[in-house]
Amino acid sequence: MLDLLGPLVVSNSTKIVLLSLDGLAGLPHPRTGKSEMETARLPNLDALATEAACGLLRHVAPGITPGSGPGHLGLFGYDPLRYPVGRGVLEALGIEFDLRAGDVAARGNFCTVDGAGLITDRRAGRIPTEVCVQLTERLRTIRLPGVEVLVEPVKEHRFVLVLRGPGLVGGLSETDPQMLGKAPLPVRALSPAATRTAELINAFIDEARRRLVDAAPANMVLLRGFDQLPELPRFPEVYALRAAAIAAYPMYRGLAKLVGMDVLKTGGSFADEIATLHEHWAAYDFFFVHYKDTDKAGEDGDFDAKVAALERFDSFIPAIRDLGPDVLVVSGDHATPSILAAHGWQPVPALVWSRYCGADPVTAFTERACAAGTLGVIPAHHLMPLIMANALRLTKFGA
Amino acid sequence: MLDLLGPLVVSNSTKIVLLSLDGLAGLPHPRTGKSEMETARLPNLDALATEAACGLLRHVAPGITPGSGPGHLGLFGYDPLRYPVGRGVLEALGIEFDLRAGDVAARGNFCTVDGAGLITDRRAGRIPTEVCVQLTERLRTIRLPGVEVLVEPVKEHRFVLVLRGPGLVGGLSETDPQMLGKAPLPVRALSPAATRTAELINAFIDEARRRLVDAAPANMVLLRGFDQLPELPRFPEVYALRAAAIAAYPMYRGLAKLVGMDVLKTGGSFADEIATLHEHWAAYDFFFVHYKDTDKAGEDGDFDAKVAALERFDSFIPAIRDLGPDVLVVSGDHATPSILAAHGWQPVPALVWSRYCGADPVTAFTERACAAGTLGVIPAHHLMPLIMANALRLTKFGA
Repeated sequence: MLDLLGPLVVSNSTKIVLLSLDGLAGLPHPRTGKSEMETARLPNLDALATEAACGLLRHVAPGITPGSGPGHLGLFGYDPLRYPVGRGVLEALGIEFDLRAGDVAARGNFCTVDGAGLITDRRAGRIPTEVCVQLTERLRTIRLPGVEVLVEPVKEHRFVLVLRGPGLVGGLSETDPQMLGKAPLPVRALSPAATRTAELINAFIDEARRRLVDAAPANMVLLRGFDQLPELPRFPEVYALRAAAIAAYPMYRGLAKLVGMDVLKTGGSFADEIATLHEHWAAYDFFFVHYKDTDKAGEDGDFDAKVAALERFDSFIPAIRDLGPDVLVVSGDHATPSILAAHGWQPVPALVWSRYCGADPVTAFTERACAAGTLGVIPAHHLMPLIMANALRLTKFGA
Repeated sequence: MLDLLGPLVVSNSTKIVLLSLDGLAGLPHPRTGKSEMETARLPNLDALATEAACGLLRHVAPGITPGSGPGHLGLFGYDPLRYPVGRGVLEALGIEFDLRAGDVAARGNFCTVDGAGLITDRRAGRIPTEVCVQLTERLRTIRLPGVEVLVEPVKEHRFVLVLRGPGLVGGLSETDPQMLGKAPLPVRALSPAATRTAELINAFIDEARRRLVDAAPANMVLLRGFDQLPELPRFPEVYALRAAAIAAYPMYRGLAKLVGMDVLKTGGSFADEIATLHEHWAAYDFFFVHYKDTDKAGEDGDFDAKVAALERFDSFIPAIRDLGPDVLVVSGDHATPSILAAHGWQPVPALVWSRYCGADPVTAFTERACAAGTLGVIPAHHLMPLIMANALRLTKFGA
């Protein structure tokens, strides 16, 4: 799709806003038969849906529940199956760690081992984050030949390990045996090129064991998801768009940076994000604006909070329309149905508004209504070509 | 898709029922403008569709009419274009022949040749099945060096030939010149590895000619579709499901066996099949239940009989729902529109019911209504991932 698009991109002065409501899609409440989107009063989104072309997005494939990484890559036009992003890299992006080309990143867990070195708790009793911070400081004192060792706390028992230096290669087996009563495994290189990296990681693990010997319950580490930054085509170049990301949460800033967008400094609330949008309106052609509250409420299994989050979001639509975007798009990175209290595989409503989006029968922004829209049920990575077309930034294919 | 799924599968105790109505989809009757599904009274299926997520399945590709083999492989999650099953293998499965790895199977026809050995009837006047049985007994007396020769009658002029022994290779040209007035062709090896197999088959043909010399109109044989059992990923392992098949017809039992399902002993009616389902409910996670009558009526071009078959099927839905499946799926392997009196290429309605299937506007189980469902129009082999997701048996893709 990106290869197809490249030669068709033409310049224009049109402005695009892509609003991503994290975990947008939901499921009907068993009592009312209505989803969060159907329960919420969304007058501004309904009005926009009435004027827009609507449909449903699938981010990976039918039945596959997307993580936030694949979900947003899909929205940005990258097929998540063609551009996989490793767990270690996502973990590093999630704390906005400045991961560089060639770095090998891994997701780390503190765990508990007994006197014989056998695992008794794979999450070290979910130690408080403060303890995690102290223990990662111990791990930072580890020295390995020829590479820098970077260790960053995440939350509770989780941390990120990054090795930085020449000649490192990802693709190592994980050390978590995924069951209690076993010793952590040494890493193995999954290709000959990764042999030295595997040796360095195993040396790190030995040192970590020594430095944590008195730190029970967090007296050992487990490492997995070894990976390097993927080589992604750069968004601003692929689409010839000056592209900016506005997101309060580090994971989404990280994903936007991964594809080469400018990440704008913003505050912690969505009102701050919209203020940032107004402030930088003149300087960019494309804005990715992220809204987290819908996902948070869904993950908490709080149906009413998700309804309220949707209604809060709706109230910001007039302030966005006031800017006069040429293309205004509302969708999300995956479903987070409250009754699942987790990400879901359900397709996600999408609306594309522009002067040229076409007649469409949908008059409400809900899962059920968007199923009958003219966009159909499409892979999420087909959305960006539609956006580009609506922005009159694509020429025709073939004469 | 299967590669994608593998690492995402998690265990659960949920139960899944996949009901396959053979030849489900139809076409409007020219007089009423309503299809068989639209004409039938289907109160139980309509109620289920109202609660379910609905859509249309394409089993191979737009415009391609699936045979029963590809149609069911699609339902089981195998892309029929990636996992082709040869004609000879399907013919052997259709009589529930115990085909083994390494066997080469071919579809055989008795035909009529004149004194000069030129074909005058490619189907030997469709001899009665009893004659076919007698003549295959003659063919069974043929001996070939180093291999067993197995010949099984099918129906009328059709039989199955299987060679069993070490070093056999499928991939031979067919012997049917596809026109009258020509002699049957010798087979040719389509790869060097198949040379010896080709020689053995040609020796079989020479012997068959001798043994049938007095058997006009069935005085010669034509062979085609030489193939070996395909290596398919095993369904119970791919999906981590204890999987059972309930089907009165041998072809469908054979297809289920091909992917590694347990094939349950059942009677000849759909009531027997449902009794079998109840009987084995505790022992399996996944049941594939096959209903033949819709296809039979469609193949006969009997619109009213197909309507009646649909209504009969509908009456069994309460007995199935009484079991309390977590995921209940109704679809089919291909269309068999009565006005075609044959398989058709039209997409096939599908409904996926579970607690988590999502809001969906469809309230009737018909071709037209399902076109507006939230599943969209999807390849049939995307159905199993959806089923697995609804059974909460898949973890998310990416963090």
